[in-house]
Amino acid sequence: MIICRTIADLKEKLHTLRSGGKSVGFVPTMGYLHEGHASLLRKARERDDVVVLSIFVNPMQFGPGEDLDRYPRNEERDLALAESCGCDLVFLPVQEEMYPSRPLTSVKISGLTERLCGASRPGHFDGVGLVVGKLFNLVSPTRAYFGMKDAQQVAVIKTMTADLNFDVEIVTGEIVREPDGLALSSRNVYLSPVQREQAVVLSRSLREAKEMCMKPGMTSGGLIKAVREAINGAQDAVIDYVELLLYPSLEPVPEDQPLNELRETFIVALAVKFGTTRLIDNALFDHTGGESACSEQ
Amino acid sequence: MIICRTIADLKEKLHTLRSGGKSVGFVPTMGYLHEGHASLLRKARERDDVVVLSIFVNPMQFGPGEDLDRYPRNEERDLALAESCGCDLVFLPVQEEMYPSRPLTSVKISGLTERLCGASRPGHFDGVGLVVGKLFNLVSPTRAYFGMKDAQQVAVIKTMTADLNFDVEIVTGEIVREPDGLALSSRNVYLSPVQREQAVVLSRSLREAKEMCMKPGMTSGGLIKAVREAINGAQDAVIDYVELLLYPSLEPVPEDQPLNELRETFIVALAVKFGTTRLIDNALFDHTGGESACSEQ
Repeated sequence: MIICRTIADLKEKLHTLRSGGKSVGFVPTMGYLHEGHASLLRKARERDDVVVLSIFVNPMQFGPGEDLDRYPRNEERDLALAESCGCDLVFLPVQEEMYPSRPLTSVKISGLTERLCGASRPGHFDGVGLVVGKLFNLVSPTRAYFGMKDAQQVAVIKTMTADLNFDVEIVTGEIVREPDGLALSSRNVYLSPVQREQAVVLSRSLREAKEMCMKPGMTSGGLIKAVREAINGAQDAVIDYVELLLYPSLEPVPEDQPLNELRETFIVALAVKFGTTRLIDNALFDHTGGESACSEQ
Repeated sequence: MIICRTIADLKEKLHTLRSGGKSVGFVPTMGYLHEGHASLLRKARERDDVVVLSIFVNPMQFGPGEDLDRYPRNEERDLALAESCGCDLVFLPVQEEMYPSRPLTSVKISGLTERLCGASRPGHFDGVGLVVGKLFNLVSPTRAYFGMKDAQQVAVIKTMTADLNFDVEIVTGEIVREPDGLALSSRNVYLSPVQREQAVVLSRSLREAKEMCMKPGMTSGGLIKAVREAINGAQDAVIDYVELLLYPSLEPVPEDQPLNELRETFIVALAVKFGTTRLIDNALFDHTGGESACSEQ
């Protein structure tokens, strides 16, 4: 497995690896890899000739007071995991390599970024758009792989890719969960044992929402209320947001909308804080197929 | 010469043309080509294996009330000129091909776009950034060629290219002028005979600025005042802006700055309206070399 720490080295090594028209699968990450990242790497390994992983904690997508300084890192373990998934090349730039000076350019994706994490974390998706644009130009992947835990990020990146005509296919991976349901996240390491136990409420509330959503008379507002009540049952949980939106447009759904009459895919997305640790989770509800309503994506 | 009107056709034809690792030189334009565009095509022909021209009147870089609807077009003449310059492929998309739906993504370049045409035409450079980003991704050029008449555009595109790590070398071409000095522009066609005669004041005022700039005691403010007075000597000229800025940073220069003490390259840029027609011109002053101060770029 090749490790590149500079852009010049990345370009040289990639040029050799992809020669003869080989396809390149790219998994961009902020490191501290878990099974969710591994599932994306394995998916890329199945489909692409060359698998590239990037590890870069992108300062531009963190706001003031967020956890940039304490974001967990473990390069040695990340490299071992990447290698075990059949990764060919890891791009591990330092900050000065990605941002030799403060960038003047920003990539804004309007509409999609005004809700959910975009509302809670102003500027977050500008930073994501910028770094993903940079990485797409540096790696020129055939396919790029993103996890659905960050469902809004997936919608944003798909839109940016289409609007800017990046010649990249966006492939998504399902949310990977702990046995008790907690969605894997690099940030789970921040949780105290008590918080970790309570954090299962995120996935449990979404599972309950799946069961409730087709009840006659269940509305958008009713489902949100039920999810909020379930989460508030956990003593230390502080809700950032619980929203029900169309997906991937992230357009709002009227509160009084009966869900069994909705013929579009929607998402229930939530962000919950335990102490200083902010966790997100979501579930997609496919109402386009009639009979398959509320089935797991 | 190949003519492509769809993205799919462009990609297919380009794939064949560039096979074997040929370099691609790209000249993006809004058509109604003149000798300035031709000089860029010939420059590309000298340096690159494959020369690609795009002609697309990009609606996203026009503001409300600007001349989008009456922007001059002459496809037949453009194609003949492109062919005579040795162009290999012309990309001529319709609007629906470039913008199948209203784009949610915008590319903003801050700092550089807050003065000159960026101030006079709000949103103009967001539209330029978006379409150039799209075209770079569609054409993947080795080099892209831009004329220095749009000096601010060159600064903006160089910054965007570096910030987003586009793997494209930006090559600039000098301003091409009519025998009397008027900078070539597709918009010159709008001028009435009287306006056309008066429009020579733009280039003449810049030539006079070149002569005056090293006079002992000449300040930034003094030079701007002299240029404004020269332009106002033309009866129908209405000044939009006359500015003296560092180039390419476009940072301001204090009004009382003695120019013969300035050890940086600066630009005098102007925009002047004749009736509804807005013309721009500029001159670069290279003060980095000591003796070569105020020499033509």
